[in-house]
Amino acid sequence: MAKEIYTDWFKSLQDNICTALEQADGKATFEQDLWDRPGGGGGRTRIIRNGSVIEKGGVNFSAVHGETTQALQDKMGFPKAEFYATGVSIVIHPANPHVPIIHMNVRYFELSTGIAWFGGGIDLTPIYVVPEQAQYFHQTLKKVCDQHHDTYYPEFKKWADDYFYIKHRQETRGIGGIFFDRLQATDEISIEDRFAFVQSVGNAFAPIYTHLIAQNRDKTFADDHVEWQRVRRGRYVEFNLVYDKGTKFGLDTDGRIESILMSLPAHASWMYNYQTKPGSEEEKTLKYLKKGIAWDN
Amino acid sequence: MAKEIYTDWFKSLQDNICTALEQADGKATFEQDLWDRPGGGGGRTRIIRNGSVIEKGGVNFSAVHGETTQALQDKMGFPKAEFYATGVSIVIHPANPHVPIIHMNVRYFELSTGIAWFGGGIDLTPIYVVPEQAQYFHQTLKKVCDQHHDTYYPEFKKWADDYFYIKHRQETRGIGGIFFDRLQATDEISIEDRFAFVQSVGNAFAPIYTHLIAQNRDKTFADDHVEWQRVRRGRYVEFNLVYDKGTKFGLDTDGRIESILMSLPAHASWMYNYQTKPGSEEEKTLKYLKKGIAWDN
Repeated sequence: MAKEIYTDWFKSLQDNICTALEQADGKATFEQDLWDRPGGGGGRTRIIRNGSVIEKGGVNFSAVHGETTQALQDKMGFPKAEFYATGVSIVIHPANPHVPIIHMNVRYFELSTGIAWFGGGIDLTPIYVVPEQAQYFHQTLKKVCDQHHDTYYPEFKKWADDYFYIKHRQETRGIGGIFFDRLQATDEISIEDRFAFVQSVGNAFAPIYTHLIAQNRDKTFADDHVEWQRVRRGRYVEFNLVYDKGTKFGLDTDGRIESILMSLPAHASWMYNYQTKPGSEEEKTLKYLKKGIAWDN
Repeated sequence: MAKEIYTDWFKSLQDNICTALEQADGKATFEQDLWDRPGGGGGRTRIIRNGSVIEKGGVNFSAVHGETTQALQDKMGFPKAEFYATGVSIVIHPANPHVPIIHMNVRYFELSTGIAWFGGGIDLTPIYVVPEQAQYFHQTLKKVCDQHHDTYYPEFKKWADDYFYIKHRQETRGIGGIFFDRLQATDEISIEDRFAFVQSVGNAFAPIYTHLIAQNRDKTFADDHVEWQRVRRGRYVEFNLVYDKGTKFGLDTDGRIESILMSLPAHASWMYNYQTKPGSEEEKTLKYLKKGIAWDN
């Protein structure tokens, strides 16, 4: 059955990404926690900490099923039915402020009523935006998207800008990327085509991130870089706890807390009325935390 | 007019508490930011940082007015009317893990339709719960409540247990205190009586907290105490960003972000699957982070 094929593929994606990240880090390895969901299914939470590059990161696989709860029916507009949801979710917080935070999620969802879709996204949160690297990131994602459909990149790039937005700060979480949800089969695009796209996204993660690690890992940094990193991580926490739909959904539906909140950084700071210095690297980065920047050009 | 009397009293409360906290700290003093609300009114945000006791704290006064927005009508069930809201809001994050975090809010709200009420609360978040101090805190609040109505303490203590609760962690934020909202005039209790109660609560803050500072400020601490402090502060951030109605309301209605989020600590940590050691002080504290403990006995 299709869902087993997707599930197995997500598992192998988790394996491949963990291997690539361990190799890139060179010091830390993943610890695994297996967990069962009382209502059906479970997951493999994999955490890496205190590496030579990665301070804290998680690469999680899960495949859960059961009946749509009242909360799912109310909040997501689902009918009362059997659901099946599987996917991989990743957040990596590096130690060096010059190595960007990265997030990826790829997932499949189906209902016994016959509805089925893929969702996901990949976005980058540099503490210091390096324009060439932002271009590399977006151009690579555009190539991945263009292999599947020429509307994907422009549509999903805008979706990421709108989604990864900290409304109360009027700033984006980072430089965006792509975000997509409820990609069902259409007359033009089969569910297998959607799956092929999600596979391409998933497979792009390791080469993109190991490249960005290699470019930045040896850059030196001082206390004020770390201070800015912790302030930016505070914003990351604000986004995840206030706006992120996956986090909210997990908290609302009694998901496994430690797997949901592995996305939060080891250390974050809040300073009252933090202001960047005119002309500083921090100020330059702030100017890039806006919607609608054409990084693919 | 009554609202001017209440407003002036809240201002003087802010002044008195700032003076008492500066005296207790002995090193840092408050900086003040005056701000105007585009729709009407404004506030005095006062921040203290890097003191000998207080790492980061805010004592904020505001008095805002205008027409109830669509958001206020939808989320709070208010009619379209003129509103007036004033009060004082405090969060203090000390440096020493043995000095508890404290929060207080006292506020008055009225609508041009004739509705008027007081709300507020005071609650304590020790990093290490000291039972005698938790008893002192609750017994003092009980005395304050009992002066005004014998149902206040039992009712408002339970309200605080239910309100300051981190549902996804199944733990309370701290040892609670009292919480109350929409205290209107009744046949038995006039709005002046409600105001007298809120004044007693406000006036109790400085003696209670300076006592707790004096009891704990000279205790020595090590790195593992600071680690636990940062983990507990992480939970404080989770509560404020996920559940706190004042924070959510402020973010939803474009309030002054720096005044709203001054409640967040300077440094917080998230560790995957943090477990306290059996028999440790941290484990003892966790056992006290439950609803329904009769600290007034």
